[in-house]
Amino acid sequence: MSKVYNFSAGPSVFPKSVLETAQQELLDWQGSGMSVMEMSHRGKHFSIIAEALESDLRSLMAVPDNYKVLFLQGGASAQFSFIPQNILKGKTKACYVNTGAWSEKAINDAKTYCEVMVSASSENTHFTSIPEESTWLIDEQAAYLHFTSNETIHGVEFSKCPDGKGLPLVADMSSNILSRKIDVNQYGLIYAGTQKNMGPAGVTVVIVRDDLIGHGVSKTLPAVFDYAEQAQHQSMLNTPATYNWYLVGLILKWLKAQGGVEVIERLNIAKAEKLYQAIDRSSLYSNPVDPICRSRMNVPFILADQALDKQFLTLAEANGLFQLKGHRSFGGMRASIYNAMPESGVQALIDFMTEFERTH
Amino acid sequence: MSKVYNFSAGPSVFPKSVLETAQQELLDWQGSGMSVMEMSHRGKHFSIIAEALESDLRSLMAVPDNYKVLFLQGGASAQFSFIPQNILKGKTKACYVNTGAWSEKAINDAKTYCEVMVSASSENTHFTSIPEESTWLIDEQAAYLHFTSNETIHGVEFSKCPDGKGLPLVADMSSNILSRKIDVNQYGLIYAGTQKNMGPAGVTVVIVRDDLIGHGVSKTLPAVFDYAEQAQHQSMLNTPATYNWYLVGLILKWLKAQGGVEVIERLNIAKAEKLYQAIDRSSLYSNPVDPICRSRMNVPFILADQALDKQFLTLAEANGLFQLKGHRSFGGMRASIYNAMPESGVQALIDFMTEFERTH
Repeated sequence: MSKVYNFSAGPSVFPKSVLETAQQELLDWQGSGMSVMEMSHRGKHFSIIAEALESDLRSLMAVPDNYKVLFLQGGASAQFSFIPQNILKGKTKACYVNTGAWSEKAINDAKTYCEVMVSASSENTHFTSIPEESTWLIDEQAAYLHFTSNETIHGVEFSKCPDGKGLPLVADMSSNILSRKIDVNQYGLIYAGTQKNMGPAGVTVVIVRDDLIGHGVSKTLPAVFDYAEQAQHQSMLNTPATYNWYLVGLILKWLKAQGGVEVIERLNIAKAEKLYQAIDRSSLYSNPVDPICRSRMNVPFILADQALDKQFLTLAEANGLFQLKGHRSFGGMRASIYNAMPESGVQALIDFMTEFERTH
Repeated sequence: MSKVYNFSAGPSVFPKSVLETAQQELLDWQGSGMSVMEMSHRGKHFSIIAEALESDLRSLMAVPDNYKVLFLQGGASAQFSFIPQNILKGKTKACYVNTGAWSEKAINDAKTYCEVMVSASSENTHFTSIPEESTWLIDEQAAYLHFTSNETIHGVEFSKCPDGKGLPLVADMSSNILSRKIDVNQYGLIYAGTQKNMGPAGVTVVIVRDDLIGHGVSKTLPAVFDYAEQAQHQSMLNTPATYNWYLVGLILKWLKAQGGVEVIERLNIAKAEKLYQAIDRSSLYSNPVDPICRSRMNVPFILADQALDKQFLTLAEANGLFQLKGHRSFGGMRASIYNAMPESGVQALIDFMTEFERTH
């Protein structure tokens, strides 16, 4: 199969030029005689890759100097446990906003380590909305306020950074990091698995303000997941996932070459608007999410007649449109249109949807 | 640089044919139209890769059916913490044998979760030996007996599986897994980072007997590091490091094509003997390790005149012999000669060492 558009929610599509660079350098990185995956993480070649990785991410996100940037393993799901262990700082409570499946997982895992106050929940709307900030219950004694900036399954995204009302804001940005401009200063901690907008699965980025670290719960927290320890060792307290770092680094260089986050955000807005418009003007497809918080990254939609689902997916795949099946807990379809999905992919999907509706 | 031999202790050398396959398939895995790193871990293509990975490892190591095979993240160092949390099973003590830097790290991290009895230690010989098994102190009330089957820094390797004296044996095989035939039935748990004999950094293999799992300490153990949870989900409780799994799978297929573990073990014996003989017959180089437990994987050696170290390394690199610098805690040199290091690489190193000795 030659031309395929891959709408997977993650791991997900790469820019073709990044794959081509990886391919070209696979046996011999820049005349070193070695593949990146063969290099010692403490050697001079890999040091260049590691330093560029951090500095490119800092520059793309304008990360202030009083924040550490860590590249860990285990996925964002592991951080659901390691965040409270690292930043409770002796407190016993944390606030969480529940806007979907990923918020719920974060809440459930945090309960092992502290009392969780659910500050707000959109469960009553089946996670098709984000509760009004004015209604959020915040406990001043809590250590932090956690929210999920984009819910991949429910297709719900915060359109702006909420007010932490004095608490450090902690955001799971796994599925929308680097897709829109943010002000890191508004956050205490940002974390993200890399397998959506940043590269392959296997790296978890943690961006954390200096004053929040150094208070890890030593009775439970493994050293390799202690932010202060890893910060001291440039995320190399143990062997990092070196080749994954390299691939994330290539994605960052690609994003810089595109013009950075502001440029990609404009493209993301255009792609998402186009697709939601196609859904809204159709009578076969629908998306139940409040337009104010529709995700630019993950667009779930259902067919008016579920009996057509299978045929839709089969025909889509025959047309080179891959991995459109919705999450089992939502049903229907889902098109993930991360940074690396070209506008032509969204257009191909819309064309297919239009033709499918016309003929069914 | 065209022809290089890479003696890195890990991440380390790959078989060239594996790199070539990865390169060839990088943009399009077997006609799927996608790179493996772009595939959903739950999709039909990646399922083929995941199933082959487990079945190839089971077949290469003859893993019995009553053992689970897990592919986790975080490195073997993370397991230093997660092993006690998973398999203490309500007990409060574990036995550890201390044969070098990696044993020590495992011991230090375990102390957070239980009382550690150091059953034996070769610290008094500066880790150049392995204590006689008859002298080991074993507490019958301990949950398990941990040892490090190969110490990469000190170059010390167990030549056979010790007797657990009734306790489940737990072995850190990070640096010699798949390099020699073992009987998995003798172990309760085997774990290994993949970045030496099995692939790139970023995957940790855990092979664990069924009766040891399902008793994780729920008060501290993150779900994604709970062996029972991950076993139930085929190591996909959260998104695994998919591309790393693929690369490990390629290494396993390469090893099968070589004839499996027995064949590679004969080659490893030949490579190690050749190098130790060259060291022993020289008056410039020496290795302090008791010949009975010299590692086949990591061969540290020192120069009689330390002032020559820098020149040795510079000339070696000019001759395409890379990453020979010894670990900072040991000094001198270290040649790591894992499965993927061809005999020609060991011969090239010996030839260089001989010539260097002749001219210095």
